[in-house]
Amino acid sequence: MWPGGRQHYCPSSRVYREHAVRLVERLAARYADHPALEMWHIGNEYGCHTPMCWCDESAADFRRWLSERYGDVDSLNDAWSTAFWAQRYDSFDEVLPPRLAPTFPNPAQQLDFARFSDDALLRCYLAEKEVLRRITPDVPVTTNFIGVHKPVDAFRWAAEEDAVSVDVYQDPHDENTHVSAGFIFDVTRSARGGQPWLLLEQAPSAVNWRDRNGPKPPGRMRLWSWQAVAQGADAVLYFQWRQSRGGAEKYHSAMVPHGGTDTRVFREVSELGHELASVPRVAGTRSTADVALVLDWNSWWALELDSHPSTALNQMEIALAHYRPLFEAGVNCDVVPPDRDLSGYRLVIAPNLYLLKERDAARLTDFVRGGGHLLVSFFSGIVDDCDRVHSGGYPAPLREVLGLRVEEFWPLAERDTVDVRHPDGTVSRAGLWSEALVPEGARAVAEFGSGPLAGRPAVTRHSFGEGQAWYVATRLAPEAMRALTDDVCRTASVGPVLPGLPEHVQATVREGDGGRFVFLLNHGQEEAEIQLPEPMTDALAPGAPPADRLTLPAAGVAVLSKP
Amino acid sequence: MWPGGRQHYCPSSRVYREHAVRLVERLAARYADHPALEMWHIGNEYGCHTPMCWCDESAADFRRWLSERYGDVDSLNDAWSTAFWAQRYDSFDEVLPPRLAPTFPNPAQQLDFARFSDDALLRCYLAEKEVLRRITPDVPVTTNFIGVHKPVDAFRWAAEEDAVSVDVYQDPHDENTHVSAGFIFDVTRSARGGQPWLLLEQAPSAVNWRDRNGPKPPGRMRLWSWQAVAQGADAVLYFQWRQSRGGAEKYHSAMVPHGGTDTRVFREVSELGHELASVPRVAGTRSTADVALVLDWNSWWALELDSHPSTALNQMEIALAHYRPLFEAGVNCDVVPPDRDLSGYRLVIAPNLYLLKERDAARLTDFVRGGGHLLVSFFSGIVDDCDRVHSGGYPAPLREVLGLRVEEFWPLAERDTVDVRHPDGTVSRAGLWSEALVPEGARAVAEFGSGPLAGRPAVTRHSFGEGQAWYVATRLAPEAMRALTDDVCRTASVGPVLPGLPEHVQATVREGDGGRFVFLLNHGQEEAEIQLPEPMTDALAPGAPPADRLTLPAAGVAVLSKP
Amino acid sequence: MWPGGRQHYCPSSRVYREHAVRLVERLAARYADHPALEMWHIGNEYGCHTPMCWCDESAADFRRWLSERYGDVDSLNDAWSTAFWAQRYDSFDEVLPPRLAPTFPNPAQQLDFARFSDDALLRCYLAEKEVLRRITPDVPVTTNFIGVHKPVDAFRWAAEEDAVSVDVYQDPHDENTHVSAGFIFDVTRSARGGQPWLLLEQAPSAVNWRDRNGPKPPGRMRLWSWQAVAQGADAVLYFQWRQSRGGAEKYHSAMVPHGGTDTRVFREVSELGHELASVPRVAGTRSTADVALVLDWNSWWALELDSHPSTALNQMEIALAHYRPLFEAGVNCDVVPPDRDLSGYRLVIAPNLYLLKERDAARLTDFVRGGGHLLVSFFSGIVDDCDRVHSGGYPAPLREVLGLRVEEFWPLAERDTVDVRHPDGTVSRAGLWSEALVPEGARAVAEFGSGPLAGRPAVTRHSFGEGQAWYVATRLAPEAMRALTDDVCRTASVGPVLPGLPEHVQATVREGDGGRFVFLLNHGQEEAEIQLPEPMTDALAPGAPPADRLTLPAAGVAVLSKP
Repeated sequence: MWPGGRQHYCPSSRVYREHAVRLVERLAARYADHPALEMWHIGNEYGCHTPMCWCDESAADFRRWLSERYGDVDSLNDAWSTAFWAQRYDSFDEVLPPRLAPTFPNPAQQLDFARFSDDALLRCYLAEKEVLRRITPDVPVTTNFIGVHKPVDAFRWAAEEDAVSVDVYQDPHDENTHVSAGFIFDVTRSARGGQPWLLLEQAPSAVNWRDRNGPKPPGRMRLWSWQAVAQGADAVLYFQWRQSRGGAEKYHSAMVPHGGTDTRVFREVSELGHELASVPRVAGTRSTADVALVLDWNSWWALELDSHPSTALNQMEIALAHYRPLFEAGVNCDVVPPDRDLSGYRLVIAPNLYLLKERDAARLTDFVRGGGHLLVSFFSGIVDDCDRVHSGGYPAPLREVLGLRVEEFWPLAERDTVDVRHPDGTVSRAGLWSEALVPEGARAVAEFGSGPLAGRPAVTRHSFGEGQAWYVATRLAPEAMRALTDDVCRTASVGPVLPGLPEHVQATVREGDGGRFVFLLNHGQEEAEIQLPEPMTDALAPGAPPADRLTLPAAGVAVLSKP
Repeated sequence: MWPGGRQHYCPSSRVYREHAVRLVERLAARYADHPALEMWHIGNEYGCHTPMCWCDESAADFRRWLSERYGDVDSLNDAWSTAFWAQRYDSFDEVLPPRLAPTFPNPAQQLDFARFSDDALLRCYLAEKEVLRRITPDVPVTTNFIGVHKPVDAFRWAAEEDAVSVDVYQDPHDENTHVSAGFIFDVTRSARGGQPWLLLEQAPSAVNWRDRNGPKPPGRMRLWSWQAVAQGADAVLYFQWRQSRGGAEKYHSAMVPHGGTDTRVFREVSELGHELASVPRVAGTRSTADVALVLDWNSWWALELDSHPSTALNQMEIALAHYRPLFEAGVNCDVVPPDRDLSGYRLVIAPNLYLLKERDAARLTDFVRGGGHLLVSFFSGIVDDCDRVHSGGYPAPLREVLGLRVEEFWPLAERDTVDVRHPDGTVSRAGLWSEALVPEGARAVAEFGSGPLAGRPAVTRHSFGEGQAWYVATRLAPEAMRALTDDVCRTASVGPVLPGLPEHVQATVREGDGGRFVFLLNHGQEEAEIQLPEPMTDALAPGAPPADRLTLPAAGVAVLSKP
Repeated sequence: MWPGGRQHYCPSSRVYREHAVRLVERLAARYADHPALEMWHIGNEYGCHTPMCWCDESAADFRRWLSERYGDVDSLNDAWSTAFWAQRYDSFDEVLPPRLAPTFPNPAQQLDFARFSDDALLRCYLAEKEVLRRITPDVPVTTNFIGVHKPVDAFRWAAEEDAVSVDVYQDPHDENTHVSAGFIFDVTRSARGGQPWLLLEQAPSAVNWRDRNGPKPPGRMRLWSWQAVAQGADAVLYFQWRQSRGGAEKYHSAMVPHGGTDTRVFREVSELGHELASVPRVAGTRSTADVALVLDWNSWWALELDSHPSTALNQMEIALAHYRPLFEAGVNCDVVPPDRDLSGYRLVIAPNLYLLKERDAARLTDFVRGGGHLLVSFFSGIVDDCDRVHSGGYPAPLREVLGLRVEEFWPLAERDTVDVRHPDGTVSRAGLWSEALVPEGARAVAEFGSGPLAGRPAVTRHSFGEGQAWYVATRLAPEAMRALTDDVCRTASVGPVLPGLPEHVQATVREGDGGRFVFLLNHGQEEAEIQLPEPMTDALAPGAPPADRLTLPAAGVAVLSKP
């Protein structure tokens, strides 16, 4: 049901789900034997426009969900710390969604409501999937994520899909859009453990829904499409085929623009189609990574609640602050939930892992004890699954592995910065946050150089068991973050796919039955000279002889393999 | 009904209209024979505070209006492109106003709702007018527009008035307020084809409703009043007579201020009254113009809808960007709807005429073919009356006359600019928008000098039939816009009222049975020396001998005629 | 009832008050004879989260309140100036709260609604107090103000308390937070005429409810606590004892932090407790002041209504603009309502006393006539108790004493400034506001040096009776405000507690049965050398010999008395 509609549809609405199921049944029955049927795409961008609903039907559903989760109301009271502010409930019937309140709503209630809302959406998906499984048991199903989207826990959903798919709409006005897209691609690939995935939607050029919608400059749509493949996609699709004359998306670019086929956009789409078809053996190959970046939707939801030391902490910002130096250094990484098996990684990075269960903290601790390297950033390991502070001094469950205690949080004012002194004598400017650390085994790698924490550690390193644990107590400037990441990688013996690449050139490897493919992508605005370790051929330059040197123009792409 | 009231009154409310009509009947019957009755002023600033209403009564009225407009629901579906996003209606009963929706509402629905809302207001006016016509058939009626106001299509309304009137509240904190006011004056004069009009409300000094309300500095109220006369007004009135002690408008200036008659404001009001009374023969005279600037409320409504290539396009901003260089060059212009007869003009300017019916495009084409000059700015001629993109490549119905095709829109990011290289070798900085033009007969007059469109045309000129058509594909800097306007005017043999005037001095001519009057107004902060083509007398300096030189002090005014 | 609750509770709700009263009865009965019962603390921060309610029950209560206030509806119509905009009421039944309206609601209605809302809260307090008085007649009661809070008129409430108490939450990110806190302390002390008061809540370190919550740096919690004592507090308490693990305030600092007792915060709290206990004789002593700063909640409410010459006027901002130079000059002041007895003061300062009853203006006039000194800032004395402009030219009731008339208000644009020329030849930049003054006996002390008012007075002085009245027609820059305040104080023979103190060192005196105590507080970031007029001992440095020189470290405190 789209705008202009006449009824309230929330994920908890029984009417909505029944309608959807009936619709799916008729569709599935009709097309079950159609020869073109390859896969079912259920729903569309779940959680995009109405990820949460506070209506009475949702409220009743929330109560049902809570009673299933907690069993009895005393457990709810305990989980939600209702003793504080006299919020005790005598019955589930008294519970409401966290609607508008005169002051901050109960944070555990808010956290559970985020979980419930994600679940309510997932249930809609599962209701349709169940029908499809029954009618077409052999046809795989997917649903298209919208990037890495706070309301929808991609890790949980991926387990219910046969293949993961995602919609990515780079912003051509943002010069780092390929880095954020890269992060999304890595999350998508990691969601089902490296299984190839589908770029289900991208724009042939401009979108229509930002305030100012720049088109993709010449070659960038091709580059960014190959980037998806380089990071594990087996399919590259578009929204939309033909640009409509009317309606709300008439200025969203299309494979066939208003201007018809004599247009740059149509030409680039056609050419890319031919190119992709020319490397069929890439499909099914996979990548590996030595680094895992931890992302936990539960922690994300909790981190960004109100009434915190600083409401300026943003999960995506800090995740990208750690992702970007890896990307720029050419180090590939997976993105994993905290309960994923870490044994295959050399380095695990946990940016702002605010909510951390004791057992997951124990797994990180064991990982280091066994020889792994761990980099944790500030305000991590603070609360349990119910947003209750872990007893025992911050960050209680990570104190042992990090070898330190955080005595006080020291958030900075909006435009405030603080000096950080590095071992090489340089000074950088950090912002957003700082912490008063008390080392308990860790040693300072960098220290604050100004402000009330001057002289105290800003970055620490702790030898623990066979491994090393690093801690960053502030938001370093990008250059300092890059230098720290390089240090940590060096210590962990983690290196780039191809050493010595020019800046802005991304490299990835996919390998499998189809062969071994090295992808090179020039995200810069200048051409790049690349030295290869051995002569290789470029599948996108058929006929060219194998070479160990390569000139990649701006926005250029090469798909290399051994001759 | 004003604030504090107890009932919902929307323009669609039958109760509201019935009350209004009863009230008007009693007023008209009572004062029909009153000797002071000169004119009826119906309503007050229609559309000021509640231009649109989304209530259920309005919804029902909207459905009635749609069913009258479209006849059957299939026509509505076609006009609204409801096939997109599965929005098809089976009956008018299903239609709602474009209320809050999870994403962009249907744009054609929004456009029709703007038309309907304007109509609903007009119907209120007509209901009262009908009563007055019946009771006092010989008394003319007017209603006061609030400047040039998006919700109320002045051109349609003017046809239902006996004389047009307008309220103008210049902002003394805005140094270009006389230019925007000048635009309003020209729209008002043009609304009934040059017929003298009434400045029905202006402030004697400060208003009370802006955040910071500066008073009009000495002489400016006089200057701006004479500017209204110079641009065609036959009456200059005020809101309000005596400043009230209480209520929400007690800090709105009045002819008699709180401080009484021993105040600057009272003195300036009194003096202006004497001055205006001293030139009775100006009344009834008219102006002519060689230039017409096109303004279309339908296009305005459509242009500023959401989900566009850039939501930063603003009809008034772009109209003023074209109006200001004319004003500064001393070139008078009319402002006309696109279906107005253009035969009397040498130059027609169409700023952002986004929505353009094919037959109006054909009229512009014919105008040029017959020897007229046309200047069109970017993102014009894109959609039809139902906000559907014209088929055939942008801007389909203007491609022939402009001699070009727009292959892609290329909106700029918020603070982004792009170089424009002019024929004289200078470079200016444009912003907001750019377009990839494909000339089809037009030649480049200026080209982009940076960015992805570098080397492609930014301004074009096309010899077509006996005339010339110019196209501007970006928002030029003010100086570049002035230079282009000067070029276009020169080509079209359009000149100022008086050549060689100092900067900031406005000149207009009114002519008729009363004589020929040249108005000179010094909007600057310095006195200005003016050379006249022949000796003239100044009606505002009675007794002074005719002279061909004139010193106009800052804020000074002269009303000249041949001795 | 806190967030998460299921019922609407507004101060007008009978159910709410009945519940509260029943709860209080049971509490009071239970603890009436408890040996630890020293005082009752009623409610919590009245007016903090829901100071006003527009519901139907409030509407009915508002009508009842209005009918008590005005007796008959004609008096209401007169008081609200309902003749303007045809707002006349025929009955109290027609009146509503000032709910959302298409334009500015009636200002007198808004003003009365602020009074009513304050009253409705006070009635809740009084209902509980009545129960406590009945059950425990000898136990004093208080309620904790939240700083100086617009919805709650501290002067009216204080009369209903046995002792005044206040919550103050300094913002460590604001370097002038001790000045604003000082203003709150002075209001609190003055609310019951100098009676010692309680700092009922302060944070041991950071709070949790600002966007970015910095902790109190080392020593500042101690300094600011002593500042409260220095300005008249007899008690210093905290919110909260032990930091909770869950709930919305888990990141609000506590006496016992999450980190336990081995923390800076716990240590500082403990040490301060010992220190405070070491000077028991301070309790009960009082301060005196030669200066009174006038603050009137009615005027505050009226000043900040909409549709004013400038909506940028802010009562607290202008009050602090006058308070800060006094604070920095070491001149102590009381803060009083305009009907307080002024005979004990040498200087009265009235910042933006917009609403001023004629009889209060007469008292200010008499104060000057009898030899007092008065400093009034712009836009004062403009309206009566019903927000109706006083007849007779601005500011009618103060024209005689100030010796001037304000012909026009001349608010400045947002970033606009205007020069002010001072008698010593210097020029400062004023902003926000200016006025066209017509002296009627006053002489210019400074004049505008630019803008349309250049050459007219900006600051005036008028010898009237035995005293002097000063007027400031603009918002002076801080340095110019300081110089003017110094001049006025010198003329009024008002001096600092201790002359010659280094910048940033605050000094106050408390005196009484317990002795005479001089408090010195170093708010700066550097240590300060202080010369005393005679040798004194410092109660916080027990054992140190009497001395007439003192080195006060940054954040240092001394409590001096004669040996």
